[in-house]
Amino acid sequence: MEHEYDTGQIPDSIPDKADLKRAFERVSGVVRYTPLLSSQTFDRMTGGRLLFKCENFQTGGAFKFRGALNAVNSLPEEDARKGVATHSSGNHAQAVALAARMRGISAIIVMPETAPQVKVNAVRDYGAEIRFCEATLAAREEALEQVVVETGASFIHPSNDVRVIAGQSTVFQELQQDVSGLDLVLTPVGGGGLLSGTALAAKLLADSVKVIGCEPAQADDAYRSFKSGKLVFPDHPDTIADGLKTALGSNTFPIVRKFVDDIVLVQEEEILRAMKLIWERMKIVVEPSAAVPLAALLNGSLDVSGARVGIILSGGNVDLDALPWYR
Amino acid sequence: MEHEYDTGQIPDSIPDKADLKRAFERVSGVVRYTPLLSSQTFDRMTGGRLLFKCENFQTGGAFKFRGALNAVNSLPEEDARKGVATHSSGNHAQAVALAARMRGISAIIVMPETAPQVKVNAVRDYGAEIRFCEATLAAREEALEQVVVETGASFIHPSNDVRVIAGQSTVFQELQQDVSGLDLVLTPVGGGGLLSGTALAAKLLADSVKVIGCEPAQADDAYRSFKSGKLVFPDHPDTIADGLKTALGSNTFPIVRKFVDDIVLVQEEEILRAMKLIWERMKIVVEPSAAVPLAALLNGSLDVSGARVGIILSGGNVDLDALPWYR
Repeated sequence: MEHEYDTGQIPDSIPDKADLKRAFERVSGVVRYTPLLSSQTFDRMTGGRLLFKCENFQTGGAFKFRGALNAVNSLPEEDARKGVATHSSGNHAQAVALAARMRGISAIIVMPETAPQVKVNAVRDYGAEIRFCEATLAAREEALEQVVVETGASFIHPSNDVRVIAGQSTVFQELQQDVSGLDLVLTPVGGGGLLSGTALAAKLLADSVKVIGCEPAQADDAYRSFKSGKLVFPDHPDTIADGLKTALGSNTFPIVRKFVDDIVLVQEEEILRAMKLIWERMKIVVEPSAAVPLAALLNGSLDVSGARVGIILSGGNVDLDALPWYR
Repeated sequence: MEHEYDTGQIPDSIPDKADLKRAFERVSGVVRYTPLLSSQTFDRMTGGRLLFKCENFQTGGAFKFRGALNAVNSLPEEDARKGVATHSSGNHAQAVALAARMRGISAIIVMPETAPQVKVNAVRDYGAEIRFCEATLAAREEALEQVVVETGASFIHPSNDVRVIAGQSTVFQELQQDVSGLDLVLTPVGGGGLLSGTALAAKLLADSVKVIGCEPAQADDAYRSFKSGKLVFPDHPDTIADGLKTALGSNTFPIVRKFVDDIVLVQEEEILRAMKLIWERMKIVVEPSAAVPLAALLNGSLDVSGARVGIILSGGNVDLDALPWYR
């Protein structure tokens, strides 16, 4: 499945400088201003100065709360009253549920029947309504469409929504406040919301910071889209980085093509090794997706000797009873 | 095995106010000034305001580096030239090896033949010499004695050494700088170095902060010593908190008796639950010993509603391939 976009042209709706700054003001004081950690071990292994932005400590355990909060809180009162809706079985579902509860509006989350009970419970605990559907893209989109028609709820797409992208840009905006002279910033890429937000902020609000997306080779659709200029979709993605199986969209693809400097790939065993090293050396819990950028440094895809490198650790939601190295 | 001490009398050698402050100056800028983390979940579960001091992020992955560094760096040049020695198969061994390397002096570590290869390697990587002995207390003490006679090295006991105790007090001294109005501070207790240092700092340098030691019921020697006024030794301690199997000593026992407000006990499954909750909710890696204080809050041993509570997370050195909930 391929789509063609004229990537020379950026949709008018994508966030500009003012949108990014407004998003930062909107979420400040509600999202956690997450700490930066560093590791002598990783500096030694890579020759760079690595600064890890700990979104695993974010509310909900992932950066996703930033985008969901910005989207929910930018709704005009009239729209907000009708509630919000999304489809997700992951971090975005919880993030939207929480942001909606904070604003006092309803949220309906479309989830596949196969979603793990623990994720279903987490969304319910935040007071959201769940609509189950079959575990196919078509069923999911149909169920969501039905919710929107029925309730008038605003759809908040997990990555392609421009308000979500602007919200995710606040990770980089915090990083930029805390670190001077950053040469490079690395994020994982799945749907591209975090990568797009980071790239927009790096190019519109900062000077000469390079932006690299890091992707599992076994879900390399963003890489292939970026290199070919044609949006392609994942073909049976099979990676332990389960947050990165989704595709770029009509907003994230042109943003990534225009503002991202490169996308690099990593193998599954490299992700696993990087994840375990982060746990062992930094003493923090990160999910496989969050380890993809470090994996790209350790496998030699990127040379960062002498560089100051921001690495966004996207999240820390893992099932401790099913850790990948026990499989 | 029981010893009697007149615990009304504190040995002259124990650290006073000036010793504690000197230790703080000595280690500042070399040890990591560790961050504080909090968790809405745990505040809600306990009704208190819990501030977690993250010594799992300390150099070497545990608070032990503070005591070892203070001890090594307080040696007069003449003694330092003859090197240092200790017995330990755990965090203290690495800490002494690293502190010695930083000062450019030799370190000899007595380790049981049964010590895990990963720990042996870590100590060797820091350039220390290892002497193996049988895995009994008698063999360990004999081997150490021999090293001292042979080389003139200074023995740095893992917990009972007064310079080590003063070094461990710097955890509380940092906590006190960062938090005002602390009501209570909790630490795990094994050999009592951390608890003694914390209690001395809390009572000599702060006002009206209560100090509670938290101990596994299956290694309850400090509890029994504290309650009875007679120093008793662990009787086949069997706990997943393997750092807490050791006993109080000639310095730590009288300090604990005089300056600690109480010692409370927790069960094994409570330690495991608290450890896993810390990983899941705070997204940090802590070892079982570090989870003992939270376990004491969650099992109802301590009521902290409305209180500001410092909790020292003592370390994060765990074997990720042998996590206790997979056993």
